[in-house]
Order: sequence, then C-alpha cells, then structure tokens
Amino acid sequence: MSELVPPADHPYGIHNLPYGVFSTQDAGPRVGVRIGDQVLDLGACAEAAGMESARVWQTSSLNAFLAEGRSAWESGRAWIVEVLTNESQRDCVEPHLYPLDQVRLHLPIEVADYVDFYASEQHATNVGSIFRPDGDALTPNWKHLPIGYHGRSGTVVVSGTDVVRPVGQRKAPQDAAPVFGPSIRLDIEAELGFVVGGSSPVGSRVSVDQADEHLFGVALFNDWSARDIQAWEYVPLGPFLGKSFASSLGAWVVPTEALRAARVDLPAQNPEPMDYLRGEGLYGLDIEMEVSINGTVVSRPPYRDMYWSPTQMLAHMTVNGASLRPGDLFASGTVSGDEKAERGSLLELTWSGKEPITLQDGQTRAFLEDGDTVTITGSAPGPNGSRIGLGEVTGTIAPAR
Amino acid sequence: MSELVPPADHPYGIHNLPYGVFSTQDAGPRVGVRIGDQVLDLGACAEAAGMESARVWQTSSLNAFLAEGRSAWESGRAWIVEVLTNESQRDCVEPHLYPLDQVRLHLPIEVADYVDFYASEQHATNVGSIFRPDGDALTPNWKHLPIGYHGRSGTVVVSGTDVVRPVGQRKAPQDAAPVFGPSIRLDIEAELGFVVGGSSPVGSRVSVDQADEHLFGVALFNDWSARDIQAWEYVPLGPFLGKSFASSLGAWVVPTEALRAARVDLPAQNPEPMDYLRGEGLYGLDIEMEVSINGTVVSRPPYRDMYWSPTQMLAHMTVNGASLRPGDLFASGTVSGDEKAERGSLLELTWSGKEPITLQDGQTRAFLEDGDTVTITGSAPGPNGSRIGLGEVTGTIAPAR
Repeated sequence: MSELVPPADHPYGIHNLPYGVFSTQDAGPRVGVRIGDQVLDLGACAEAAGMESARVWQTSSLNAFLAEGRSAWESGRAWIVEVLTNESQRDCVEPHLYPLDQVRLHLPIEVADYVDFYASEQHATNVGSIFRPDGDALTPNWKHLPIGYHGRSGTVVVSGTDVVRPVGQRKAPQDAAPVFGPSIRLDIEAELGFVVGGSSPVGSRVSVDQADEHLFGVALFNDWSARDIQAWEYVPLGPFLGKSFASSLGAWVVPTEALRAARVDLPAQNPEPMDYLRGEGLYGLDIEMEVSINGTVVSRPPYRDMYWSPTQMLAHMTVNGASLRPGDLFASGTVSGDEKAERGSLLELTWSGKEPITLQDGQTRAFLEDGDTVTITGSAPGPNGSRIGLGEVTGTIAPAR
Repeated sequence: MSELVPPADHPYGIHNLPYGVFSTQDAGPRVGVRIGDQVLDLGACAEAAGMESARVWQTSSLNAFLAEGRSAWESGRAWIVEVLTNESQRDCVEPHLYPLDQVRLHLPIEVADYVDFYASEQHATNVGSIFRPDGDALTPNWKHLPIGYHGRSGTVVVSGTDVVRPVGQRKAPQDAAPVFGPSIRLDIEAELGFVVGGSSPVGSRVSVDQADEHLFGVALFNDWSARDIQAWEYVPLGPFLGKSFASSLGAWVVPTEALRAARVDLPAQNPEPMDYLRGEGLYGLDIEMEVSINGTVVSRPPYRDMYWSPTQMLAHMTVNGASLRPGDLFASGTVSGDEKAERGSLLELTWSGKEPITLQDGQTRAFLEDGDTVTITGSAPGPNGSRIGLGEVTGTIAPAR
C-alpha cells in the first residue's frame, strides 16, 4: 500500500486524516477523508465493507457523523486507520479513492450556530488601541471571560469561494454624516474554527472538563471584516454587517485526536478565572499559521499565544444554559502574536491603514483591493516529530455589486 | 359549515389563518392552520384533496413551505380559504380537524439565522439612559440605520417552554470584581418576530420594495434578557450570554396577508434615511400588545410607534450582500411606547429596578422571580372592523440549575 499511505513525514499522512465533503463528476457531495493527496469516499468504502454506520457518511455534510458523538468519532477514526493500513481491506478502499485535483470540495458542515470569540490578548489590545484610543485598550471584562458574539451561520462559505466586497454605511470620525458605498477598509481575520458535535439540552451547562467530548475538530477560518462598516455600526450591540457578508471555513476539519501532540500549556491567566472556567481540560494549541496576500506571506500568527483555551470558550458559551447542536461552530477570534509580523489582521499589520505593507510585486496594501487573494495555511506538531497539515482557507475579493 | 368558520368578529376567523406546527396522540409534528379553536392538518387535507403540494406541509416545520416563496404562500392561502368555505370540500376537511386543546404545539420554524433589531426609539432611549447615564441616550448611528445583532438560533423555543434562570458572571458598577451565580435581574423583552421565506444568494441585496416578497409572517416574541450578565459582558462585542439562554417564539405565525389592514404610516424619520432604506414599501403595523406577569397586565406596548419598518430591517440586513434562507427570523427589538405603561421590558417599567411594579396579588417585582409566568398577547385590525389575534407567547421561570 506504499502508494496509499504516504510517508510518516507527510502533512496528510495516517496521523492526520482530516474530514471533508467532496463531489465528483459522477456523484454529489458526500463525506470523505483525506489521505495524502487523495480523498477516500467514506460512505462507499464503509458500505463495501458491510459497515452499518456507512449512512452517517453518505450525506452532504458532516452533521450526521457529528451527532453521533465522541465514541463514534473514535471508532470511526480507528476503522479508517484499519482499512487504510490493512492489505486485506484493499478491495473496500481502492475503488473509492479520488485524486484531490479531481474533486470539488464543499462546506464540510451545515453550520448550526456560529459564535466568534476574541481570545487573543494581543489582538484585543491592538484593536482596542485603534478603535478606542481614549480608553483602556482591554475592556474590564476581557480577562474575566472569553468575550464572544453570534455571527451569521448562513454566510459561512467554504474555502475558495469568492468574497463580494460588501457595501454599507460608514462614517469616519471627522465626517459630519455617514456615507454609503463599497467598503474601503476590507480586512481579514486569521482564526481557527472549532467544530462542535454531540448536543446538550437547553438549561444545562458543559464544563471545561466535559468540553472535549464536544470538540470534534479544527479548521482554518477567515472572518472577513469591513472595518469602516463595523466601526460605525458596532456601538452598542456589536458587529453586524461589518462581518455578516462572508466568513470562510477551510474545507478540511482536522480531528482533535490528530492534534494531541499540539497541546501546550496556556499562557498564564491572571486574574485566576472563575471556577467554571477551570479544570483539567485547559490547553493551548501549538498551531503555526501563515497568511499570504497574492502569494506574499504577510504574517505568521502563532496560535499558541492565545489566552483562552477552546474548552474555556465552550464552557463559557454554555454556562448560561445555552444548548449545543451538531454543527455548531465557534471561532477563536483573530490570532495575533507579540511581534508585528505575527498579527492576524490588516487592521493591526498596517495600524489602521497608516503603515501599509508591501507585497513582493512592489504594490502596497493598507486594506484589500478587488482581485486580491488571501490564503491562510496552518500546521501543527504530530506524533514522533511529524507535522500535521491544516489545509488552507482561501478567497478572492470580487468587486462590489 | 357554521361550526367550522367562526363569525367574522372572531380573532381566528377566515381573515387570519395563522400557521403552526402541531402533534396529536396518533401522529407527530406537522403543519397546521388555525381556524377558530381548531387546527386543520394541512398536509392530510391537501392529500385527501389530491393536491401535489401536500408534501410541503407534511413535515415538522414550516421551512419547506417557506422555501416555496410568495406565490405559493398566496395560492396556499387561497386554497385554504376555499376548502374551509366550500361545502363540497367538507370531506377533505372534517377528518383532519383537531380541537386546539387536544394538540401539542411545536416550534413552527426551524430557525436558520436569528437577528434581533432595536427598532423602538423609546426603548433605545430608555435603555441608553439606564446603561450609559453619562452619554447620549441614543448612539449617533441610531437614526441612520436599524441597529441589529445576531442571536442564538438554537435556543429559540416555542411558547409554553419553561425558561431556566441563567447563571453567569455579573459585576455591578460599585463591585471591585465580578461574581458568579444565577441572574438576579432577569427580564423580558416584548417583541414581534418576522419569519422570512424564499432565499437570496450571497453577494446580492434585497431592497425595501423587494422585502415583502420575503416576509412570510409575524409571531409574538419574548427576548428574555439577563440584565446583569448583559451589562458586564456587552462591551465591546454586544449581548451574548445575557440573551442566548432562551428566546420564546409564539406558536402561531400570522401571514403578512392577514395584516394588510394593520399597515399604518411610520413615525416621521428624521434625518431622512439613505436611499437603500427608502421605497414604496415602508409601513408600520398597528399591533396592540399586552404583557402580563402572573395574570396582571403590566404593559400595553404599541407596535405602531416603532421607528423602522420591517422592510427597512430586512433591506439593511442584506445590504452588505448577506444571504437569506427560509426560516431566517428577525425580531423587532423591544416594543416601547411613549407612556410608562407602554414599556416592553421590566428594565424600563421599573427603571432598572428602582421603581418596582405591583401585581394584583400585592406582590412587587423589580425583575422576574422563579415561578413567574410572563404572557404576551397581541391583536391587529382585520378587514371590515374585525380583529386579528396573534396568539400568545408565554413562559414560566424555572429555578437556576
């Protein structure tokens, strides 16, 4: 099977196995798993192997599989490893493999509720300094709770989808009245998206230590942001149209099992969080991200610097009794590190447009121009010195309509 | 058919015909229409009549019908009137009628995205005065755009569902640090919910004049709010856990066709809104609401005072290219009138708890106590001097867990 399972140092080898949804010329969207540069049609393979559970993969999103919960995810992953590595299973596998360049990738989940957090201290500090220059950069609540807000599920799009420049109202501080038109401060936010599975009933809480039962996997995420629209609209009820035009999710969801070797200690949390934000299940993730615009790497945001653990975000999101559904998605908020070259948004990289960056073709950018392509990639440590690839999330700006 | 179609002055007569989802002892949730004090099983009736379209009603939510769009809604309504009033159709109708008190009502829609607006000038002014006593009550953007934010779709529950008191962090201004526990300032917000049908693609806009094509109907809505949790968390990204524990939607969705006679002119809008918020399709709705706590009427909010038209809210929500899906739901924000007795939240009625109200049993309330039942009802002018009932949205507070 040397041609099937790539060498141990391949970013999409047997230790990764990200899930996605793909279609081919002859059949519509269904669940697949990536191995090397191929996709295995999981439902077809499982059916050929006589697995009853095949049906959870014979659908156009991961949601049915997400609904099954942690033990099904673990046994599903163990079965995938078995069929990929055991010669005797070759007949169930080979007819259902497709080269990556011959498939189309779709949004991997049907997004139930989408929440965006704000979990990078460096990002929140930078944005606070820019948006509220006369106040404290961090709001008084920031170190007590993972701040978050709900975004628009219906405009989460898969990597590769063009993003139409939004139009709307904006008003610069010096303007007497707002004006209308295409956003002139269109930005990115390099984030991780966490895909939630299982469910919890309304009125119950999920603790930090229970949270991992619901964390199915991770995908790269770009929370496109129209800074001018956002700045005018966001007081007092938060971001709305400045964000809701599009958010791009990577096509590959890396299972949390594949990211065990990436777990690291969180930065020190001071003041000590309240009890419901504490537990054994706290961790950071040593995921290295890379943001490029038209091929020029403009930032390398380090996810390991994030202040809040994904399990704290999930525990906070449910502490008031809010329920979870399969397909819930929460994003980390922009990932920014201490260094200028580690900032995950143009707002921060160009300090609100005042310090444009230069691309390798000599062009400069304060914010995005029509035709710009933004690509975010990521990787994490795997077992035994290997690296796990997180795929990419990419999108090109189309002119306003 | 005198026993079937109630007299013209009945609030659920032939001019109303609200849609809902109901189940009976012998069969699960499916779409029905209310006539008088009975529910007609629409799918079964349509099937008996040989209608091909029966299937859109033979499901557990209105979403399939919502997806069909305005012309299907109009022909569906015309067909319902026909079968209810034409003697020759009696065989298709009578076997499929159920007395209201023998059915269970369910959430009528599978909520896609839920947005809450803030469209009452009186409410925004009151809340601004209470939450930001040192600033202007209305933020500078308020009269330029209908402020809104996304809420949690997964915790929209049907009228009659108990609401568990949320727990979370709160910090009164005089406190040195936040504390944790059940909310002690649990409140209501009396609102209307607008149910969206049809769809629009990402990157396109829906104008004020196109908006009515997407407005399927209206239901009463209670946006339960934990004021203490909200006050501590909401800067800078808006309300999150203070709202996301539960929002209650009425079981009956009154079609917009039934509310034609309720349309009134909007209050004067000054400054004149931008072009995208203008058009022929602007209107207010003369809906009278009534809020009671444990049987005492505590407020009568007048929807006709709302500043923004539902069509302006929908046009604003999509002006940035955000798409619409069948089952999208947007709420008006708290309905408050000029008079104290017309305020749609306890925050306003008791002026942040400082002026408790007295119930008919002599008890006082600053905010809600465990066991309290809040019921919001509504009615609107129908044709020829009749009144249209909007049903009710009710819920009882269960103790924190």
